[in-house]
Parts: sequence; C-alpha cells; structure tokens
Amino acid sequence: MKNQTIFFKNNILVMDTATIVGPKEHEGPLGVYFDKDIEDDLLGQKTFEYAEIMLHTTVIKYLLNKTKLKQDDIDMCFCGDLMDGIIACNYAMRNFSIPFMGLFNACATFGEAVILGSVMLDSGHADRIICSTSSHFSTAERQFRNPLELGTQRTPLSQTTVTGAGATLLNKKFGKIAVECATIGRVIDYGVKDANDMGAAMAPAARETLLSHLEATGRSPSYYDLILTGDLGKAGSNLLRILMKEKGVILGDNYNDCGAMMFIGDQEKIGQGGSGPACVNVTFNGYVYKKMMSGELTKVLLIPTGALLSKISNLQGETIPSIAHAISFVRKAEFQ
Amino acid sequence: MKNQTIFFKNNILVMDTATIVGPKEHEGPLGVYFDKDIEDDLLGQKTFEYAEIMLHTTVIKYLLNKTKLKQDDIDMCFCGDLMDGIIACNYAMRNFSIPFMGLFNACATFGEAVILGSVMLDSGHADRIICSTSSHFSTAERQFRNPLELGTQRTPLSQTTVTGAGATLLNKKFGKIAVECATIGRVIDYGVKDANDMGAAMAPAARETLLSHLEATGRSPSYYDLILTGDLGKAGSNLLRILMKEKGVILGDNYNDCGAMMFIGDQEKIGQGGSGPACVNVTFNGYVYKKMMSGELTKVLLIPTGALLSKISNLQGETIPSIAHAISFVRKAEFQ
Repeated sequence: MKNQTIFFKNNILVMDTATIVGPKEHEGPLGVYFDKDIEDDLLGQKTFEYAEIMLHTTVIKYLLNKTKLKQDDIDMCFCGDLMDGIIACNYAMRNFSIPFMGLFNACATFGEAVILGSVMLDSGHADRIICSTSSHFSTAERQFRNPLELGTQRTPLSQTTVTGAGATLLNKKFGKIAVECATIGRVIDYGVKDANDMGAAMAPAARETLLSHLEATGRSPSYYDLILTGDLGKAGSNLLRILMKEKGVILGDNYNDCGAMMFIGDQEKIGQGGSGPACVNVTFNGYVYKKMMSGELTKVLLIPTGALLSKISNLQGETIPSIAHAISFVRKAEFQ
Repeated sequence: MKNQTIFFKNNILVMDTATIVGPKEHEGPLGVYFDKDIEDDLLGQKTFEYAEIMLHTTVIKYLLNKTKLKQDDIDMCFCGDLMDGIIACNYAMRNFSIPFMGLFNACATFGEAVILGSVMLDSGHADRIICSTSSHFSTAERQFRNPLELGTQRTPLSQTTVTGAGATLLNKKFGKIAVECATIGRVIDYGVKDANDMGAAMAPAARETLLSHLEATGRSPSYYDLILTGDLGKAGSNLLRILMKEKGVILGDNYNDCGAMMFIGDQEKIGQGGSGPACVNVTFNGYVYKKMMSGELTKVLLIPTGALLSKISNLQGETIPSIAHAISFVRKAEFQ
C-alpha cells in the first residue's frame, strides 16, 4: 500500500484563526472558545443560503481584521462547504479579490484545505493562505433530509449540522502552532445506506486513515495529547473505538470527537452531536487552537471526516462512501 | 494586486492522458482525437448518474492500463465533476485505493486539478498524480435546468454539456509536455443571471485571468501557438475577443474555445457549443495532447472556465460568479 503520509519540510505555521457560530453552538461546552456568535441564525437575510454565505464572508473578513492584513497580503484561499456547488464559498469569495481554490470532501473539507494549503506553502509558491469552511443547520437539513417546515422527528442516530464558519491563516513566519505532517485519506465504503447515521458510514474511513497514520509515523495513539475526529458523533466515535480495538489499537481518554463535544442538551434535540464542514473547523480554530496557544495541548492529531453522498445518490439507493484525513499539529516550544 | 502566476521549479510532465466521450462528441470535429467513445450514453446503467460514475471510473482505469501502472504507483488523485456533492468522482474513487482530493471549480475544475497536482509534485511530496474530471449532458441538464422528459426548447445562448471524462497522469520523469506555469483565478461576477447564457457569465473571468497571466509573464497572446478557453461557447468566446479588445489586447487566429470546437450541427441542436468539466478536459487530453506530442503545437495556454452557480442560487435570483485558471503547457524539445 502506498504511503499516504507527508511530512512538511518547512515550518508551516498557524498565524491566527477566526470562528463564528450559531446560538446552539455558542450555548454548548465549547462556546467560550469561539470568537463570534450570532443570535439570529438567518442573519437578517432572506434565505438560510444567504445567511451561510454571510457567515463564510464574515469569518474571512474577521480573520483579516484580526491579523491586520489586507486582501493583497493573501496569496490564495482554499475553501469549501456542504451546499450543492459549494455556493457558500463561491459567493463569499465574490467579496474578495484573492485567487480561489474550491474544495469538496464533504465534512472533511477543512482537513483537505489545511493539507493543500500547507503543500502550497511548502512548495514555495505562496506565503500566506486562508483555509475556510462553513455549514448551516438549515441549509444542510433541507438539502440532505427534509424541509424544516415539515417538523420531521429526528432518528436516534442522526446528527445536527453545525451552524458556523471558521478560517485559518497559514504562513511560514509567524505562529506557535505548526502543521507537522498529514495523512491523506482514501474513499472507504462499508455499505451503510442510512443518511441519518453518518457516524457509522464515516467511522471505517477514520480507522483506515488513523491506522495508516500510526503506521507511517511509528507512533501510538498515546503519542498525542489529543486525537480528535471531525464529526462521528457519540455513537460513531464509540464505533471507531470498537473498530480500532479490532485491529489491536486501544483509543484512550485522549481520544474525542468534535461532533460529540459540540452541544449540550438531550439526545432528542441534538442527536449524536454536531456534523458539517464547520464542526471540525470551529472546534480546531476555536477550542484546539486556544488550548495549544496556552500550552495545555502540545501535540494534536485532527481527523476531519466526510460522508461523500448527495441527496441524489441517497435517493437512488446508494451506500455512503466516506473519507478522513489526519493532520498533526505541534506546538513549537520557542516563541516565534 | 497580488501576483497570481506561479512558475513550477521542477519539470512537471504529462506522462499520458486518457479520454472517453459520448456519441455526439465522437461525431464532432475532435472525435478522432478521443481514446474511447460510447454508443449508449446510459452505459447500460439504471440512471445517468450511475453512467457518469462509470465514465469517470473507466477513464482512470484506462489511463492505468495505458501506462501499465498499478493503483499503488499513483500517489494521489485530484478529481471533480459537476454533480451536487461531486458524486461522480466520489463514487468512482470507491473503486480505487488511492488518496483522494475532491475539487470543485465547476467547469474550471480540470484546471484546478492540474494546478494543484503540479504544486503537489513540485513540493516533492508525490511522484505520480492523476487529475480527472467528468460531466454528462443528462445529469447536468436535470440538475441545472429541466428534466429531459419535458423536452424543453433550448434558448439561443444555451450550451450542451459534454458527456465524457478525461484523466491526465502527471509526473516528474517521463513525458514530452511540461506544465510550465499557471495563473490562479479569482471569483468575478459581472451580474449575469441567465443560467442559459453561461458564456457571458464566464467571459469576464477569462479576461481577468488572461490579462493577469500576460502581465505576469510579459507575454503577448501571439507568444502561444494556441490559446484555448474552456467552455465559453461561440457567443461567449466572441464576447471574450471584444472584452480583451477593450483592454487593448487583440486575440488572433491562435485563440479558440473548446466548447466552440466540440460539436457539429446547427445551433438549434447544440446551442453555442460544449460545456461542463469534461469539455476542456477531453479537448486538452485528446486534441491538444496529441497535437503537442506530434509537434504541431509547441506552446499552449489552456484557460478552463467555470460558472460557480447552483440551481439553488439560480432559483433564489442570484447572479453567476465565475472563475478561470490559466495553464501554460510547453513541448520539451528533447526526448525524455
């Protein structure tokens, strides 16, 4: 099997991050780690699609403001979202005069963006890159499942798409957190068909990527202070523990899942936890980044997970192929 | 304005290409340049979506066969298509055990794939990369416009989505055609709202990228043996000539458009010409590649163009943001 893991030659550093989330995410356990939150998840727009475009636009503008950089200082944006034709970032990027690469690995897109952004920096063809993704509960719900107006009851294994957007500014000069290495995922399909049980569809992809990463690096899970999958949810992350155990690898207390960490409230309301391209994004750019900056976390393995279905493939009775990428972030001891 | 043009440091070479097209494309002026053609555009599948997945899968398998390479010899695939959630490549990649990066820049996705694939090779993190895209008239028509069963009449400025798929194998050792440099596009929106007139929506993006490319390289259009936009169509490519003239740049006989070259037949049947992520792809991987290999063409500038709309953005009354990337291919004199 081909080695899927690449180690970056240069110091690829997180210069800064920005996050914006909806009301439910703000009320959750990670709420204090997010930069901005919105009270009205329609943001005064006429549709939820426009609201998500505004979330995506706002988070990039906020990152530029925070870092006192101008659009001209940014070489490229690597962006994605969950809407058909990734219109959240397409329309957001209309507001910026920055070269644009649109990405789609479903909820794993943030991982793809960080990997490709880091490769671009490593190749020497760029100095500053923004990686951003967004999702919105109400755009995802009506695209993949049912119109909200139906008031459909949730199934026990369903998840709640995170309303929010996040952006990471990568560069080679400033920052304490480095992108050390990355394992690029393959498409894995174990035959799960239920679009309301995406944790089960994605857990095998997370296992495949994590095993490949551990083998390539010669590390055990305990090497990391924290291993975080993107949005397997509570049931899905328990399933990953079981699947890893099958292969003789025990995931300890240092393993968690961004989706499982996102919300408070009973399962009837939030299902198995958060999902969507914003889930792993805001958890990393909010919670993980701040914990690493303060020194509480030093080595973190982020594993964004994505279910590569569409409503068409689902309606045509197809199973759900999935993907997961793994990215190792390391806190540099020296102040740079 | 930030420089958008990158020159590759290594020899990034096209090792080989593969193309497969539908019956209409096979009958067209470029028909003889394509590797494979299908008689039944449903390919014996139960839906057109399955047919497109099969096209995408087939072209990658054919490229591996042609080059006598195995899946394990390929480091990564950079793929995209036009279907919601890019399911053609997601499901195609289920058949391969190769690390996968899903891309979406609409019909410009092939350009994005070649640029990111070349950057990945240039960075030293990979040795062999496949770049592939696909589209299908019947999946695009019902997704963006109307169900085929309606038999809707075409509007005069509409285009015909190309049924086909193409794949390029990039490496650093073998091949006569090099990826010399690339200009990465930005999102441009001149306010065109008609989803049946995408040439007009994309022409401004093509101008912006071409002007940026010429400025960064200090070249005039006559430097190239051939400048090829992706899918502006006949009216759209005439519009680009006018838009370029406005800026004092005359496009001569060495300018053409893949969409305008694709079909024969009256306008009532094919509209302004071809479109879709397969249009620029099969034209490059079929026609251009063979003309460059034979030495008839030495320097070619390919400008894949993409309209970044979705049916949702269109139904919500939005305009069509567009993007174009430019890639310079050069024939190396020495046999490598």
